[in-house]
Amino acid sequence: MKKVLAINSGSSTFKYKLFSLEDESVLAEGIADRVGLADSTFEIKLPDGTKHFEEVAVPDQEVAVKLLLDSLKKYHVVEDFAEIAGVGHRIVAGGEYFKDSALIDEEQLKKIYDLKEYAPLHNPAEGRGIEAFMKLLPGVPQVGVFDTSFHQTLDPVHYLYSLPYEYYDKYKVRKYGAHGTSVRYVANRTAELLDKDVKDLKLIVLHLGSGASITAVKDGKSFDTSMGFSPLAGITMATRSGDVDASALQFIMEKEHYSMDEMIEILNKKSGLLGISGVSPDMRDLIKSDKPTADLARKIFISRVISYVGSYIAEMHGVDAITFTAGIGEHDSGIREGVMKDLEFMGLVGDYEANKTNGEKIISKPESKIQALIVPTDEELMIERDVVRLAKLDK
Amino acid sequence: MKKVLAINSGSSTFKYKLFSLEDESVLAEGIADRVGLADSTFEIKLPDGTKHFEEVAVPDQEVAVKLLLDSLKKYHVVEDFAEIAGVGHRIVAGGEYFKDSALIDEEQLKKIYDLKEYAPLHNPAEGRGIEAFMKLLPGVPQVGVFDTSFHQTLDPVHYLYSLPYEYYDKYKVRKYGAHGTSVRYVANRTAELLDKDVKDLKLIVLHLGSGASITAVKDGKSFDTSMGFSPLAGITMATRSGDVDASALQFIMEKEHYSMDEMIEILNKKSGLLGISGVSPDMRDLIKSDKPTADLARKIFISRVISYVGSYIAEMHGVDAITFTAGIGEHDSGIREGVMKDLEFMGLVGDYEANKTNGEKIISKPESKIQALIVPTDEELMIERDVVRLAKLDK
Repeated sequence: MKKVLAINSGSSTFKYKLFSLEDESVLAEGIADRVGLADSTFEIKLPDGTKHFEEVAVPDQEVAVKLLLDSLKKYHVVEDFAEIAGVGHRIVAGGEYFKDSALIDEEQLKKIYDLKEYAPLHNPAEGRGIEAFMKLLPGVPQVGVFDTSFHQTLDPVHYLYSLPYEYYDKYKVRKYGAHGTSVRYVANRTAELLDKDVKDLKLIVLHLGSGASITAVKDGKSFDTSMGFSPLAGITMATRSGDVDASALQFIMEKEHYSMDEMIEILNKKSGLLGISGVSPDMRDLIKSDKPTADLARKIFISRVISYVGSYIAEMHGVDAITFTAGIGEHDSGIREGVMKDLEFMGLVGDYEANKTNGEKIISKPESKIQALIVPTDEELMIERDVVRLAKLDK
Repeated sequence: MKKVLAINSGSSTFKYKLFSLEDESVLAEGIADRVGLADSTFEIKLPDGTKHFEEVAVPDQEVAVKLLLDSLKKYHVVEDFAEIAGVGHRIVAGGEYFKDSALIDEEQLKKIYDLKEYAPLHNPAEGRGIEAFMKLLPGVPQVGVFDTSFHQTLDPVHYLYSLPYEYYDKYKVRKYGAHGTSVRYVANRTAELLDKDVKDLKLIVLHLGSGASITAVKDGKSFDTSMGFSPLAGITMATRSGDVDASALQFIMEKEHYSMDEMIEILNKKSGLLGISGVSPDMRDLIKSDKPTADLARKIFISRVISYVGSYIAEMHGVDAITFTAGIGEHDSGIREGVMKDLEFMGLVGDYEANKTNGEKIISKPESKIQALIVPTDEELMIERDVVRLAKLDK
């Protein structure tokens, strides 16, 4: 039975999921955690619910790959490595070069490393993951699946900043967006659930996780998206600020004697829901808290979502459906209800009873002019499908 | 005959307009230019069309005020300074303190100086203008009219950034907006032209000048606005960037070895329409240019306007009218048409024939669900009216 691996390597994590090529079922999944750090661990979960966990040195991605391959054999998930027909890798930055997922050879691998300045913590680790597989499973197709490529369909009107043009010419400073793999999956799944062709729809995908973005999807293609050059821009996130007037940053930097790097660190790590509330970056904690700033943080979050949704409705000249996904989108009915209520003036009729529970479904009434849905995202499945598509695997 | 002066002091300019209290007609207007610099000049224009211009030393605001008062007598606009019943001053930064225009005494003047860190080039010059009038026209009411006060009705949900809350607590870093005096005038005039009470309307005012902002006005009050802590934020402007991902700035600063102050200077002076096009900050030059980036700059401008208009329609749950004002808004029919076309999907029916010419009027068809208007702004008249209101002047 042929199998496909989907790999999501962070700077110090190595997550994997093994799929059956035949029916897309998950045969094993897990993580090597704290890669390159002390107290590293390796974990594998099997479909029968058993979980094996060990404290083990994982100095680099190659050791993580070895531990994974050994475990797959040890627990009889794979009897022969020839069963692994392809490996897909999530890559954060694809720049303007990778306009789609791609088979990765030595030359393409170099491109991934070359793009490291756009994702200094991610691209090098992801590149090392690919190298390890090239070495340990020679001949097996490696596929890169880029967070940015889905947004490469943006028009320059939407991706260019109003900066001196030379910064685009010289350094490719522009909007790249993120969450593209998630949005692509969710947009297509939304069309299936609505029984429509995605090419006939104007959709807005609300990927609301600890990182959060709003994407307008028109004719099946990304039309505009709230994240920018980096995943810092756009709406309020768990600890990220989203959009802020640069002069406000200059003002704070002077007052606090921060360098730009220190300021950006604060915008990434100490802002957003955590910064406003002073309570937590987690929506579940904000609901429980009776601090007024916790409620305020939730209201600001909804407001920023609505602001972008309104923008994209205007930019696309309408919208057929909005879809909630990722941690908050899939599990926070209050946020979903807040967003839907704000769109009632446009003819959205929410099914607030259906919205009370989670899981994949339509949460608007049939007569609603704008449909609303929950679609749990599945980036790994999208990676698996890209491996099948690009390595031309037969089921 | 009682008269009221409206003063608009920049860092090196001193503009004035003298109104008849009785009928709001303009009795004289002009400018002292290059205040504090070499080659300074003074100019006065009279209602009969005559214009007097002189090259004269204007080392400070006090000299500018003296030149003004002397000229008013010399050209028989004023026979006795007792005719001047009040003086209104445009002030850029009112912070959270000035929630409305205000009579300025010594204590209030100190507040204006105290707010100088929010407008380092403007508030001190404006304060010195007030001081000069206090000295030269003792006993005449001085009124401060703040660019920011109209936006003091914003809810914290709209004015707070998603930053650590302490920056608001300690330094009052928040959205203040600008163009408030213009927007207040235009919103009220829009209601008059529509024969409605402004309190019953949802309006969006597009103040599109070399500085440009979009403001949502609900129930006659500012509801949200595109400029932020400073006038740098929001939409693309003549030379200002509007919103940019802070990480993109960090990236450019590293590449170019810029300090934050240098970067902000570029965002203010070399970005926007000028930066994108490489041609000019002036829309009229962009129309004439055949460089593709000139056309691109105009398209990006329209796109950013539409993006904010869409946001504010969603935030207010609808809109009754959009009004174009300021240099571009009053004179660039192509930009107006571009914006209106993008709102046709919401039921806006443009009167594109009426739109071809400028001047105060309605430029949508009667059946339009969203009305569109041109209203030439008149900040000086608003200042005059605030003097009358706050100094309780009788006509």
